[in-house]
Amino acid sequence: MTTASLLGEGSAVLAFDVGGTDTKAGLIDEHGVLREVVRVPTPYSTDGSGDAVVAQLTVLARGFADRFPDIQPEAAGLIVPGLVDDEAGVGRYAENLGWRDVPFRDQASAALGVPVAFTHDVRAAGTAEYRLGAAGNYADVLVVVIGTGIASAIFLDGMPYSAHGYAGEIGHAVIEPGGNACACGGNGCLESIGSAGAITRLYNRDAAAQVNGAREVLDRARAGDVLAASVWKDATDAIGLALAQSVALLAPEAIVLGGGLAQAGAALFEPVEERMNSLLTFHRRPVLLLASVGENAGLVGAAIGARERLAGVRS
Amino acid sequence: MTTASLLGEGSAVLAFDVGGTDTKAGLIDEHGVLREVVRVPTPYSTDGSGDAVVAQLTVLARGFADRFPDIQPEAAGLIVPGLVDDEAGVGRYAENLGWRDVPFRDQASAALGVPVAFTHDVRAAGTAEYRLGAAGNYADVLVVVIGTGIASAIFLDGMPYSAHGYAGEIGHAVIEPGGNACACGGNGCLESIGSAGAITRLYNRDAAAQVNGAREVLDRARAGDVLAASVWKDATDAIGLALAQSVALLAPEAIVLGGGLAQAGAALFEPVEERMNSLLTFHRRPVLLLASVGENAGLVGAAIGARERLAGVRS
Repeated sequence: MTTASLLGEGSAVLAFDVGGTDTKAGLIDEHGVLREVVRVPTPYSTDGSGDAVVAQLTVLARGFADRFPDIQPEAAGLIVPGLVDDEAGVGRYAENLGWRDVPFRDQASAALGVPVAFTHDVRAAGTAEYRLGAAGNYADVLVVVIGTGIASAIFLDGMPYSAHGYAGEIGHAVIEPGGNACACGGNGCLESIGSAGAITRLYNRDAAAQVNGAREVLDRARAGDVLAASVWKDATDAIGLALAQSVALLAPEAIVLGGGLAQAGAALFEPVEERMNSLLTFHRRPVLLLASVGENAGLVGAAIGARERLAGVRS
Repeated sequence: MTTASLLGEGSAVLAFDVGGTDTKAGLIDEHGVLREVVRVPTPYSTDGSGDAVVAQLTVLARGFADRFPDIQPEAAGLIVPGLVDDEAGVGRYAENLGWRDVPFRDQASAALGVPVAFTHDVRAAGTAEYRLGAAGNYADVLVVVIGTGIASAIFLDGMPYSAHGYAGEIGHAVIEPGGNACACGGNGCLESIGSAGAITRLYNRDAAAQVNGAREVLDRARAGDVLAASVWKDATDAIGLALAQSVALLAPEAIVLGGGLAQAGAALFEPVEERMNSLLTFHRRPVLLLASVGENAGLVGAAIGARERLAGVRS
């Protein structure tokens, strides 16, 4: 795997990426090689606790122990979606997963028997991109992950800034007051216009023939479909506007675009960059970069966190 | 003066606030009392240098020395508008004042014969508000100064964040793409809708009887003038929207509103807060506070900087 050389030598660690649909578990060996990735459905919490999620982590860890008896993970990295308080080690809330104020860090550590690093999935992926990807040379960086939803990880003066989990919600910055209904309950959030989910939904709302994803909308736009081109343009315009607003406030030196939509490459990048720059004057213009760590960026970020946690415990 | 008790005991320092129209100079004694404030027109730089400004500082300093022979300032704080690189001590650019890349910190220090702290006027006022005002108990704070223009100072985890002078330009975040022409050359920036300058200008553009300032627009709105009420509402809507966008990205615990427009009190605060909150859902809602240090906040912030610079030189 391409992540092999990225992580480098160090302790063997476990990495868990609890997603809205699936949970991915990875085993990283002492050479920094991601030896296996296992994917299972994420259990929904019916009682507001994280018990089912934590129980599943122990099953996944046991599976690795059975299949890789020679590898002894010394720590684990756990990442979850929603509102996450890194400092407290608590998952505050995840819309689709049913939990409330779960002390995941301590519960997972008790269940797995190793120190656990705990953070938000997008911040973990951002850390992987920042540490191992193209933005590593910059002090002030915004990593924007555009998929079903939109979120970002912020690095200022080289350090992550999370504000107890509330920072980086660029997907829920209102771009168009009174606009499209958003999953968060608001209207006109960036996510309701510029996410892969929104692109699909907005196209299907008015199209005669439905698509299964944003990729198909782009394909149809390229084939001359006027509605598809219009939906795509609205999305890239909205993303470019939100980035320009972020530049005015934070002046990042680099902005990394990742997530599923970034796979569109130049079809996303060029109109977004053009739009962003058209809205800037004296501002410091950031370089726009494509995420480079790949689909396991979250797991890689979790593994980085696990190794750092271990270094912290030992120091 | 009300700033007397705020600054406390320490070294006597000079404070200079070079504004777009006037320069204010203050002498702070060892008890932290602002003994005198002198105001003179700011010289325009015809050659791109800061020579005329620096020459004026020495004249102002000599005036204090003549009138207060018992007070020996040991450092100076100098603040200027425009793009300011705090780290480098350089005034990059000020639209209305004609200079380019002037090493003000070193030049002023050489001319005055004391260590000089150098920063941006709004960041200095923000520092005064953050250290001495109502927001002092919060780690993550945005201080927004609304006057002729709009700018902000950002404090994250208790520390100022300036990005070499480019951060905090909330006044030049585009709120309405393609909207009103802005002084920066863009269109639809917050400043072109929500500043005191814009309120006056937009009202006068369509009004039969002209006003001399935003205060009069508010007075007319209260007296039933429909145009005035509409201009005021557009302004507070735009400010509330920009604040909500900043909350999504940075999640400050407190937002301080200062500058001339904040003197409108509840007439500004209430609609801005209502608008901001109407655009937030799961976000962390900041407390909205009124700036409390007063009209000399810039000078006070410059004095704080001067005393800190002295502490740094001595340590």
